[in-house]
Amino acid sequence: MAIVEADISVSVDGFITGPNLEQEPGLGEGGAVLHAWIDEPAGKRLLDEAFASAGAVITSRKVYELTAGWGDDGFYKMPVFVVTHRAHDQVVKGDTTFTFVADGIRDAVARAVAAAGARKVHIMGGASIIQQALKAGVVDQVFLHVAPVVLGSGTPLFAQLGERIGLERIETIETPSATHQRYRVVK
Amino acid sequence: MAIVEADISVSVDGFITGPNLEQEPGLGEGGAVLHAWIDEPAGKRLLDEAFASAGAVITSRKVYELTAGWGDDGFYKMPVFVVTHRAHDQVVKGDTTFTFVADGIRDAVARAVAAAGARKVHIMGGASIIQQALKAGVVDQVFLHVAPVVLGSGTPLFAQLGERIGLERIETIETPSATHQRYRVVK
Repeated sequence: MAIVEADISVSVDGFITGPNLEQEPGLGEGGAVLHAWIDEPAGKRLLDEAFASAGAVITSRKVYELTAGWGDDGFYKMPVFVVTHRAHDQVVKGDTTFTFVADGIRDAVARAVAAAGARKVHIMGGASIIQQALKAGVVDQVFLHVAPVVLGSGTPLFAQLGERIGLERIETIETPSATHQRYRVVK
Repeated sequence: MAIVEADISVSVDGFITGPNLEQEPGLGEGGAVLHAWIDEPAGKRLLDEAFASAGAVITSRKVYELTAGWGDDGFYKMPVFVVTHRAHDQVVKGDTTFTFVADGIRDAVARAVAAAGARKVHIMGGASIIQQALKAGVVDQVFLHVAPVVLGSGTPLFAQLGERIGLERIETIETPSATHQRYRVVK
């Protein structure tokens, strides 16, 4: 069955965006450094591997809206399940299908697992989606791209999740602008 | 001049203790896993290196009180500067001197730097001391021992520090029960 992996960039102090998202949508003030690794050859290879190994993506309505403009063909080129409170018809762009799931994270993950076949399900975030998935016990692996910065404020990945979750380290990969840590969730 | 390094164990979600410190003083509920690396040969070597390279320690009154019973000879075997609001006479145990500094973190660091000579000043925590030192701009390096656990709640190392601090990765070391990340603070 598909491995469900939450995959996200984060600061050393645990933020996935800087502050002032109203002024700087997406990564917030100072948040661009979180994604600097993506623009480097070694980081690009990691990202390409992540895309090549994924058979489906789960994301939030907010991230969908932020990234909806990426590419005429839908960018992801695989089924994308958008967790939302507002029902919406499926959107098809080239090889990418955006299916809006209003029945919660468990349902979204079940549908993504069915769609992914032998490949991974890649939970992209935002933070709320990853928190919901961790609490629901449907995450098999966490892949954190830790950028060398203390942002001081912003959107916390975990905040006070309220549950203790054991992890086992699978691997640590260094690229010039991040330390990439992949963990297995102990169930 | 002595390098000032903040050195502390932390969960993947950024806690230096679990919750319920009243019931479980020291590391809190579930927090023992944060220090599991210390009991392993590879971790013990790292800790021995940290002690061997340090010429002075900075800590909080709370950590002082928690660890005051460690060893008749004072455990640290070097000058220890305890940041406190309550003045207290110096305590001498064997080679260890505990000097209580009531004039704030900058003064404590200046005195520790003078005492450390060519060795490092090791800021042990707690979280509040490390936060104060980072905000005061007196930290040269941060050495985080990241244990493979999401604690969900507890004492946050950074929380909302409120300041953006650039870091440069110096090294990443894996031991069986932690990933050790040493960063230089960009000034």
